[in-house]
Amino acid sequence: MVVNHQKDIISIKDLSKKDIDYILKVAEKMEPIARSKKRSTVLGGKMLGMLFYEPSTRTRISFETAMKRLGGSTIGFLEAGVSSATKGENLHDTAKIISEYADAIVIRHNMEGAARYVADSVDVPVINAGDGAGQHPTQTLLDLYTMKRIVGKTKDLHVSLVGDLKYGRTVHSLAYALAMFGVDMSFISPRELRMPKDVLHDLSKLGVSVEETENINSVLDKSDVLYVTRIQKERFPDPEEYSKIKDAYMIDLKLLKGTDLIVMHPLPRVNEIAYEVDNTPYGRYFEQAFYGVPVRMAILDLLIKNSEEI
Amino acid sequence: MVVNHQKDIISIKDLSKKDIDYILKVAEKMEPIARSKKRSTVLGGKMLGMLFYEPSTRTRISFETAMKRLGGSTIGFLEAGVSSATKGENLHDTAKIISEYADAIVIRHNMEGAARYVADSVDVPVINAGDGAGQHPTQTLLDLYTMKRIVGKTKDLHVSLVGDLKYGRTVHSLAYALAMFGVDMSFISPRELRMPKDVLHDLSKLGVSVEETENINSVLDKSDVLYVTRIQKERFPDPEEYSKIKDAYMIDLKLLKGTDLIVMHPLPRVNEIAYEVDNTPYGRYFEQAFYGVPVRMAILDLLIKNSEEI
Amino acid sequence: MVVNHQKDIISIKDLSKKDIDYILKVAEKMEPIARSKKRSTVLGGKMLGMLFYEPSTRTRISFETAMKRLGGSTIGFLEAGVSSATKGENLHDTAKIISEYADAIVIRHNMEGAARYVADSVDVPVINAGDGAGQHPTQTLLDLYTMKRIVGKTKDLHVSLVGDLKYGRTVHSLAYALAMFGVDMSFISPRELRMPKDVLHDLSKLGVSVEETENINSVLDKSDVLYVTRIQKERFPDPEEYSKIKDAYMIDLKLLKGTDLIVMHPLPRVNEIAYEVDNTPYGRYFEQAFYGVPVRMAILDLLIKNSEEI
Repeated sequence: MVVNHQKDIISIKDLSKKDIDYILKVAEKMEPIARSKKRSTVLGGKMLGMLFYEPSTRTRISFETAMKRLGGSTIGFLEAGVSSATKGENLHDTAKIISEYADAIVIRHNMEGAARYVADSVDVPVINAGDGAGQHPTQTLLDLYTMKRIVGKTKDLHVSLVGDLKYGRTVHSLAYALAMFGVDMSFISPRELRMPKDVLHDLSKLGVSVEETENINSVLDKSDVLYVTRIQKERFPDPEEYSKIKDAYMIDLKLLKGTDLIVMHPLPRVNEIAYEVDNTPYGRYFEQAFYGVPVRMAILDLLIKNSEEI
Repeated sequence: MVVNHQKDIISIKDLSKKDIDYILKVAEKMEPIARSKKRSTVLGGKMLGMLFYEPSTRTRISFETAMKRLGGSTIGFLEAGVSSATKGENLHDTAKIISEYADAIVIRHNMEGAARYVADSVDVPVINAGDGAGQHPTQTLLDLYTMKRIVGKTKDLHVSLVGDLKYGRTVHSLAYALAMFGVDMSFISPRELRMPKDVLHDLSKLGVSVEETENINSVLDKSDVLYVTRIQKERFPDPEEYSKIKDAYMIDLKLLKGTDLIVMHPLPRVNEIAYEVDNTPYGRYFEQAFYGVPVRMAILDLLIKNSEEI
Repeated sequence: MVVNHQKDIISIKDLSKKDIDYILKVAEKMEPIARSKKRSTVLGGKMLGMLFYEPSTRTRISFETAMKRLGGSTIGFLEAGVSSATKGENLHDTAKIISEYADAIVIRHNMEGAARYVADSVDVPVINAGDGAGQHPTQTLLDLYTMKRIVGKTKDLHVSLVGDLKYGRTVHSLAYALAMFGVDMSFISPRELRMPKDVLHDLSKLGVSVEETENINSVLDKSDVLYVTRIQKERFPDPEEYSKIKDAYMIDLKLLKGTDLIVMHPLPRVNEIAYEVDNTPYGRYFEQAFYGVPVRMAILDLLIKNSEEI
């Protein structure tokens, strides 16, 4: 990193507010290239090694798009099945070898800590694209960028996080990052899926105001952003309980009418947002997916080339 | 499309004769690039999203080749298994997300109508690379191009379609397109696998002369092109019946000797064409496979860049 | 090939000493590009067809890296499952079709002789990336290149091959190539896994001095290179026998201490080399993996473009 001289992006906590601001600023310059309005070959001849031990459409393809829009190439494998990983080679050796071929590595793994382990094993920059229950920092960065681009600011915001706040790693990192920017938040979830205590503790140390509730209606008026996550059936022993909660947290036009907020979602959704929301000024989750590209372009440029000559 | 201002290529029926002529003309300009005699980066920085829900060697790889020979890149996935499709994400959302990353989408799906559905869901151009029993328009275009390039014309031809004319989607579209060009046709098939009535009806409306027969020998002298398709064992309840028919429709040098025609096949063949035909002036199916590249280059160029600066 | 006018690289035995010297010389020129210190687009617009019927991380990815670092692209498939190979298409037709799209083909197959068969079927250059118990010539070339680069010479060397010398195809080709360069060798293996008689016979015809032993300690002082291969458990009916042998051939710092040699390994290793060796001047197997890239760049450049304008 230009800013704090780290070689890797493993956790959002490794980045300072200044780092994040810088990445988002570079992402803005990348947007015309991501939109195919402008051409760049700034990463021409460069290789991004992709180690995807878990399936992933959006994250993998948006990294590939980011790399290729900048003139670079990708190598690697999808899931352990399609590689020597099946021959019993360990993560350390596989990562070492890929690091001999590539200028940077993106890894997704089902095991928490895998990305940090790989970063410590190799000399090239490593980007964590999700490690089990652990971190997924580029998702947080694109979430912040989406808010900046659509709402027009990253401060004086009110962001409401809705759904499964207990198991969703996305919302933990996002809450932390928003707190760094002094953003007030509401957490809306069923009792069983409340934000974990340690996250709440971190946030209070950062001095932001946080409200917890089970009732989504109470936060709508004050929210600039409604960030929705999926509630998984498996979390509930009682199917009837699940069914009731699912309905209570379903986002549709009736709920949103009269408000002034935007709806975000890390995707894939199942049925927590009604389709009718898609083509309205509320529904911005596909745009959010797009913003993953300029944000990852910025990260790749900073880690691999560290140039601003785009 | 330049010509008729459509954004997608879903069915050959969407294209006018003028559209087709234009695509084939651009394909000719693409040939030196497809043959690696000339270099182009006309689609440099552009992304083609590949949604392949079904396996396919030729179609997928020839689209990839077309895109890359023009300097572009591909992203996407092969088969549902290697993606979030397994997490239950629906076709609509997957296509929407890919459309945020890519400048055009190629889709192959086992469900008839899938390509049209995707085209209606997204803003970028969509190309149908086969949807179940439905359409596969770029195959038809490359078939026409092959005839134009090898026989030297697309009119005053006599084309004989041989094999399974009932279930083979390839021959339905091809017959329709040939009829648009006023080409006379013979249909040779076992009784059980005759060309469907609705196709015959469409053709008669287009005013072309069509002959149906079970006897392949009777058409050889008048044919410029023998277009062979596979007869699948599964279509016959009686294995002996299948065996008899398979032998009767086997194309070998003894059959072809003395004729002046070329043999085409959409591939893969199993054993409907003898290997001895391969390296003779009759066997042109591998050349036909090659022509898929310049034709798809033309389509990609027209849909994505719409330039003639190659 | 520039040198001997062969179109393919199927077996190391197809190459003369002069050919090999030439390839290694070109590889040296490729190194700055492989290290991303210098950019080249010498293979811009060119396509490498990858037919990988067997999984492979290193070989596949290093070919892809080589092609892409030179500005080229790759097409093809990994494993039969992801292609029409499943629809019953034979190797001949698949290779023919890919040869219509690509400027060269790399094939890995589980069947000995598959690469030669493909080379005879198509007009474009074919590179054998391993065919079952058969050949894997680019591995041998990168092994030679590694010795040249690290030890600084390919003659007046003493190379000791350790481990499974019976079934390891890598060591058979390597021994042959080293003999062409007049390199003295020691073969260290358990009795059950000795170098096959026909290989020994070939070597003696080439006039090099070869020693066979079961005791690794006796060769350490005279060796410049210790080339280690994996001993597979499945080779031993008696698990205790395997366990004893495994320990006797384990390479660790205690064994290496005081010697002046380098340790090479084709990878993946399982536990035949202790991790403590990795970050010492002894352990050079990851560097060896890297050298696969410039060597394959040289081969691709020579076969596809045959240019020296890098």
